[in-house]
Amino acid sequence: MPVRPALSPLIAALPSTVPFVGPEAQQRERGRAFRARIGANESSFGPSPRVIARMESVARDQWMYCDPDNYDLKVAAAAHHHVAVENIVVGEGIDGLLSLVARMYVAPGDAVVTSLGAYPTFNFHIAGVGGRLVTVPYENDRESLDGLLAAVVREKAPLVYLSNPDNPMGSWWEADEVIRFIEALPETTMLVLDEAYGELGPASALPPIDISRPNVIRMRTFSKAYGLAGIRCGYAVAETQVISDFEKIRNHYGVSRMAQIAGVEALADQAYLETVVAQVAAGRRRIADIAEQNGLKPLASATNFVTIDCGHDGAFALKVLQGLLSRDVFIRKPMAPRLDHCIRVSVGLAHELDIFAEELPGALAAARGN
Amino acid sequence: MPVRPALSPLIAALPSTVPFVGPEAQQRERGRAFRARIGANESSFGPSPRVIARMESVARDQWMYCDPDNYDLKVAAAAHHHVAVENIVVGEGIDGLLSLVARMYVAPGDAVVTSLGAYPTFNFHIAGVGGRLVTVPYENDRESLDGLLAAVVREKAPLVYLSNPDNPMGSWWEADEVIRFIEALPETTMLVLDEAYGELGPASALPPIDISRPNVIRMRTFSKAYGLAGIRCGYAVAETQVISDFEKIRNHYGVSRMAQIAGVEALADQAYLETVVAQVAAGRRRIADIAEQNGLKPLASATNFVTIDCGHDGAFALKVLQGLLSRDVFIRKPMAPRLDHCIRVSVGLAHELDIFAEELPGALAAARGN
Repeated sequence: MPVRPALSPLIAALPSTVPFVGPEAQQRERGRAFRARIGANESSFGPSPRVIARMESVARDQWMYCDPDNYDLKVAAAAHHHVAVENIVVGEGIDGLLSLVARMYVAPGDAVVTSLGAYPTFNFHIAGVGGRLVTVPYENDRESLDGLLAAVVREKAPLVYLSNPDNPMGSWWEADEVIRFIEALPETTMLVLDEAYGELGPASALPPIDISRPNVIRMRTFSKAYGLAGIRCGYAVAETQVISDFEKIRNHYGVSRMAQIAGVEALADQAYLETVVAQVAAGRRRIADIAEQNGLKPLASATNFVTIDCGHDGAFALKVLQGLLSRDVFIRKPMAPRLDHCIRVSVGLAHELDIFAEELPGALAAARGN
Repeated sequence: MPVRPALSPLIAALPSTVPFVGPEAQQRERGRAFRARIGANESSFGPSPRVIARMESVARDQWMYCDPDNYDLKVAAAAHHHVAVENIVVGEGIDGLLSLVARMYVAPGDAVVTSLGAYPTFNFHIAGVGGRLVTVPYENDRESLDGLLAAVVREKAPLVYLSNPDNPMGSWWEADEVIRFIEALPETTMLVLDEAYGELGPASALPPIDISRPNVIRMRTFSKAYGLAGIRCGYAVAETQVISDFEKIRNHYGVSRMAQIAGVEALADQAYLETVVAQVAAGRRRIADIAEQNGLKPLASATNFVTIDCGHDGAFALKVLQGLLSRDVFIRKPMAPRLDHCIRVSVGLAHELDIFAEELPGALAAARGN
């Protein structure tokens, strides 16, 4: 073997992995496009027409670097949440912010608590800093607040992850339950409260933002309700010192100029957001109807997807997934125990849900071996 | 002091800094816009019209996530450099890739060698992983290949940084000198060869790409000659195992969908690139003329900027810089010893260089106390 530069011991121990295989990769492998792209919880309704027009108009300005301070977007987000600019940090999607949080709060060997089957990219970034993942099973299709808390205390974890509303189950806790969880956490434990789907569920699931508390980081994104998954932009809201600490390591030129401009415009068009939220709610009902018409059980959802209990084990649900993929319907499914009997279907456009309705019976029949 | 989550010891020891203050921040502070934006080595000529048209046409598609594999862009870059797709990794600008390289090859306490006054963002990312920076002074306005090599050997450094052509001096080494440097490096030392300006200088400065060598990572960007600084996209070319190791920690969804599409289109329009390279060369001559007309000494440049020796000490050059800023001309200057007697002026549009020509005499007179 030739002599070569050694990876740092921490990195050498890691596998080379991709947390998610994108639909593009699947299409390349299949050699043909999906007819319905309803697997990645994107918003098929797209961004606001105002956002599209603004992006088109600034395409020619992209020779300029982005503002490394993300200033205009921070101002807009701060106004939106009634906090100060100093309470906002912008990153390359929530994924980018999770990578920073992992580095900030986790030293090699530290325990980090999350739910078994929750966001894989969080786990990927924890592994990347040598953190030790401690997972807590879901209970009744929800992340277990009591279970997470017990694990945090038992493991003296410096960091815990909670998504609310939840992915991949679509479930949620009401704000008072989340607040109870936050207040019970050790003050030395940082909570990442991932609210990527926050705009899509009941407002009652979102605790008021309290930027005096130094152990909660709320994360929001333009990828879901705002219909801008491709721009890679999210932000976190937290106490000023926490936000300032991101300056120690963040990639200051990580968020594109286009993304910053699009984000400002997206926040400004709340009327459009409301129409999307209504369309998503209607789409959830449609997916639930399709599931029930096929004898399956849709779970209640506060997100832009519906998770469907296929009524048998994980192997069966996997066959249903594969049947849909082979019928050119891109969906995903949870893979963890207790969740893996489900498939997950994103709200798409009406014609995409028509295709799902057409193809589900065949996929189910094939899974049953009929 | 309230109890709060502790930062990891590595991060707690770091300052909260911004490697570069952007022109937007300066404009906010000044309360007015610059008349000439010729300080950040952006390409005022902008991207290819084909790229602009393509970006405009896909604005409405940004509801879809980016391809986490950056596949199409990797294919295009691989074809451009006559290497395999497995020899390319795409990141959020060279900055994003530097952050990953720091994490990959540097453990806390490891020595990392660079030139004194070279790219600050590299230093920022090395500090972020607890690396120990060892700096080598420039010699005759060039990075010292002998000095860098001696420091690498002396310090047993796992990582060394070289930019060629160089920023902030605009100088360069011919390919045969770079190859000699590479061949003299210990095989256990990884070289980051930052070729951000590679398209703008003489082709003779670029060694042939050798993807069999496991200790060189070549970095390229769309920010300079391609006129796309705002999209945040760069790529690295290296041996397949090195590229594969990036998968251990990179933010797979870090590069926007728009950036991937723009990058493919930019690579496809090499005819436009040639026109930019010619315009940049003309602009360099213009800046050099202006400098000489004012009794200053322009340095030879293989980049899209000209570094100008102001003929006195660093304090004097700083006054010249401040005089230009106060006259609404955004430029920058090196701050390190041996380099700080210079200012750095990016090639801008003709009207911007006119403004520079108009304002330089006044700035010089003010610096001289006239």
